[in-house]
Amino acid sequence: MKKIPHRIYLTEDQMPKQWYNLRADMKEIPDPMLNPQTFKPATAEELYPVFCEELAKQEMDDSTRYVDIPEEIQEFYKMFRPSPLIRAYNLEEALGTPAKIYYKFEGNNTSGSHKLNSAVAQAYYAKEQGLKSLTTETGAGQWGTALAEACSYYNIPLTVYMVKCSYEQKPFRKAIIETFDGNIIPSPSTTTNAGRAILEKDPDTTGSLGCAISEAVEKAVTTEGCKYVLGSVLNQVLLHQSIIGLESKIAMESIDEYPDIVIGCAGGGSNLGGVIAPFMQDKLTGKANPMIIAVEPASCPSLTRGRYAYDFCDVGKITPLARMYTLGSSFVPSANHAGGLRYHGMSPIVSKLYHDGYMEAISVEQTKVFEAATLFAKHETILPAPESAHAIYGAIEEALKCKESGEEKTILFGLTGTGYFDMMAYESYLKGTMTDYIPTDEDLEKGFSELPKVLGIQE
Amino acid sequence: MKKIPHRIYLTEDQMPKQWYNLRADMKEIPDPMLNPQTFKPATAEELYPVFCEELAKQEMDDSTRYVDIPEEIQEFYKMFRPSPLIRAYNLEEALGTPAKIYYKFEGNNTSGSHKLNSAVAQAYYAKEQGLKSLTTETGAGQWGTALAEACSYYNIPLTVYMVKCSYEQKPFRKAIIETFDGNIIPSPSTTTNAGRAILEKDPDTTGSLGCAISEAVEKAVTTEGCKYVLGSVLNQVLLHQSIIGLESKIAMESIDEYPDIVIGCAGGGSNLGGVIAPFMQDKLTGKANPMIIAVEPASCPSLTRGRYAYDFCDVGKITPLARMYTLGSSFVPSANHAGGLRYHGMSPIVSKLYHDGYMEAISVEQTKVFEAATLFAKHETILPAPESAHAIYGAIEEALKCKESGEEKTILFGLTGTGYFDMMAYESYLKGTMTDYIPTDEDLEKGFSELPKVLGIQE
Repeated sequence: MKKIPHRIYLTEDQMPKQWYNLRADMKEIPDPMLNPQTFKPATAEELYPVFCEELAKQEMDDSTRYVDIPEEIQEFYKMFRPSPLIRAYNLEEALGTPAKIYYKFEGNNTSGSHKLNSAVAQAYYAKEQGLKSLTTETGAGQWGTALAEACSYYNIPLTVYMVKCSYEQKPFRKAIIETFDGNIIPSPSTTTNAGRAILEKDPDTTGSLGCAISEAVEKAVTTEGCKYVLGSVLNQVLLHQSIIGLESKIAMESIDEYPDIVIGCAGGGSNLGGVIAPFMQDKLTGKANPMIIAVEPASCPSLTRGRYAYDFCDVGKITPLARMYTLGSSFVPSANHAGGLRYHGMSPIVSKLYHDGYMEAISVEQTKVFEAATLFAKHETILPAPESAHAIYGAIEEALKCKESGEEKTILFGLTGTGYFDMMAYESYLKGTMTDYIPTDEDLEKGFSELPKVLGIQE
Repeated sequence: MKKIPHRIYLTEDQMPKQWYNLRADMKEIPDPMLNPQTFKPATAEELYPVFCEELAKQEMDDSTRYVDIPEEIQEFYKMFRPSPLIRAYNLEEALGTPAKIYYKFEGNNTSGSHKLNSAVAQAYYAKEQGLKSLTTETGAGQWGTALAEACSYYNIPLTVYMVKCSYEQKPFRKAIIETFDGNIIPSPSTTTNAGRAILEKDPDTTGSLGCAISEAVEKAVTTEGCKYVLGSVLNQVLLHQSIIGLESKIAMESIDEYPDIVIGCAGGGSNLGGVIAPFMQDKLTGKANPMIIAVEPASCPSLTRGRYAYDFCDVGKITPLARMYTLGSSFVPSANHAGGLRYHGMSPIVSKLYHDGYMEAISVEQTKVFEAATLFAKHETILPAPESAHAIYGAIEEALKCKESGEEKTILFGLTGTGYFDMMAYESYLKGTMTDYIPTDEDLEKGFSELPKVLGIQE
């Protein structure tokens, strides 16, 4: 009989009642957002036309360490949380590693990912403010599904702009979002000025998150009682996603474990920022020193090959500017890129921590990602999302290093979700028709050359 | 703070270490299987050409009350079990019912359903016997996926015959089964005599479970070291699935609850037989008297409109005969029927219990099923499989009766799985293009007229 169970579920009493705000413990906080007209630091009030007020306040709050989770949100969390912390006994055995591998699995809800953690919070605050509708964008579709679930629960009409190539790759995302009463539009579309402008320039574009964001923001600011919500990148989202790391830490403590290495996949940074939160706190406050690793796609390598610079969050340049690792707001990963992790930028919090040397980052080609995904599926019986499989790849790499060195390290990674809607990508991997894409330096230079000129910082 | 948590997970220590065999407590056991050549009761040995030996023994064992779950199977179970028992607080509130509704959710694994419970067991026994390969059939695809997962884990090559219309409705099932190294063939196919005969008679057939079974059995008996496994109907499958009910009962006991009503969807009877097992035991032994309800599709109404008769389990008439509620082995539900629950017969154990008055059965049209599914999804944030939604429909009906009468009954139902692969059906429901189908008495008479003549029982 093994001492540590395969799966650890916290009881409801053990579940966190507060989110954790990483900024409160950062020695240097991220640079402020800038107003897109004036290029001066934006105030919470300046964000109100776009965002819910409470969420705008959370966005700006660099000092409150713990934020109470409203009871209504705690109740909703109990419908799909706690998520299990799982010991990957079978993967360890298959790799022949002395490392102990744990993963926090966020895929056991209908959205299929961790995105529901922030969707519930954002829909709740929108309802509290009495908003009449919401808009958002979605890439791979998890965020759109999650927000549709939350909005359906709170009776808030929702319009989702979905990146066109994902919309086409994943026809059933439409049906599931519609089941939850969401209105879904492939982006770029003719429903906004931003969309029409992009289509005019490039009628065959496969779309991008940056473009879908432009459309969703435009729709929100031009519609009475409507605001825009975003599923990643923002400080508020990382705050909500801290529940992943907080639960993981409590579960690990219950079995006297602490990770030597924490690994997350990195697109906009929502899962990564969430899973690492309390461990990064320990690192920032000197309590512990875990190695923290972000794994991103080689086709969209914002951390590993991007610039740490002020940039727009959208391609239409109507959102505030954030200082982050970015490939330029017009960067679009190659059409052969499967799944999410296709955003041109990176959470300002994650970017700052990476810039200041608190974490590492690697990038990986997608055929290697699917190889890791398939190996994991066969041994752990969970079919991972392509996004999540980046973290799996990272964990396998570290576990194999342990095999080499004989070290019995404890590895924790975030398994963000399931791959049920990614079967076209799995099919192309299985058939051997999946290809890799690594942008050339020239490809990247094009994006960098369009970075906005911000006086005194980048000119 | 509500006293009863939303979700109850057993600890590994609390998980059952034995399956429960309902037959050991039945006052009259089901009539024996008959050899298809002689129409005489079949022996375990006569089943060996088709089935694994250990499974054939389990099939015949009417007396062992509790069967030890081999430790290797317990270990595999721990990768995806325990499944949660969930209190449907939000559905209760939406219905305004005083009833307390609980559901045992079996969808939190990659197969998306309870089928993995028996797949693991069957693949394990096949490995123990040193078999070289397995064949099976799948309708909606959950069983095929589950068995592919289990066979991939135990390194046993698997061929899955999938009912053609499901294969076409669910293109991604193919990819997921192939990810787990399974070989999948739409049925009827030209790879077997049975398939070729059916195609010759009706080239446009949409296939049926009975036909896919014929093909899978033929392939098994004509291939060296290969056996056939089945995901429902059989006694062995109900034995393995008893884990659903056993876990449910332990979880309910931990909150001082006991169901007044237990509800399951009914196709071949695997989930129903599993979820009701320990509660039916209480009923058979006089310890308690819960109402037990099977909910089946109006388009395939074996319990509510079938004959209790000896019939073949497959359309090719090569399997042993079982005495069960049946619509005739050539019965195929109308092509507009979405999802599973399309088998012409019913588990002999469930059939006997129903025949002897220990349970009730209702049938329901699929538009009503999808209405219940959508209501449930919005309030409980789980997108149910169409099969599972039959049980939801039954639970809602009973909860509304409680609202009428003011009774505070405790309802337990089995939520067998998720609907990620059923989005085409959801889409047609959302668009209003989904239609219902209820076979006429003449339709059914055709099936009954073909029932085999068994001397002394049906002539």
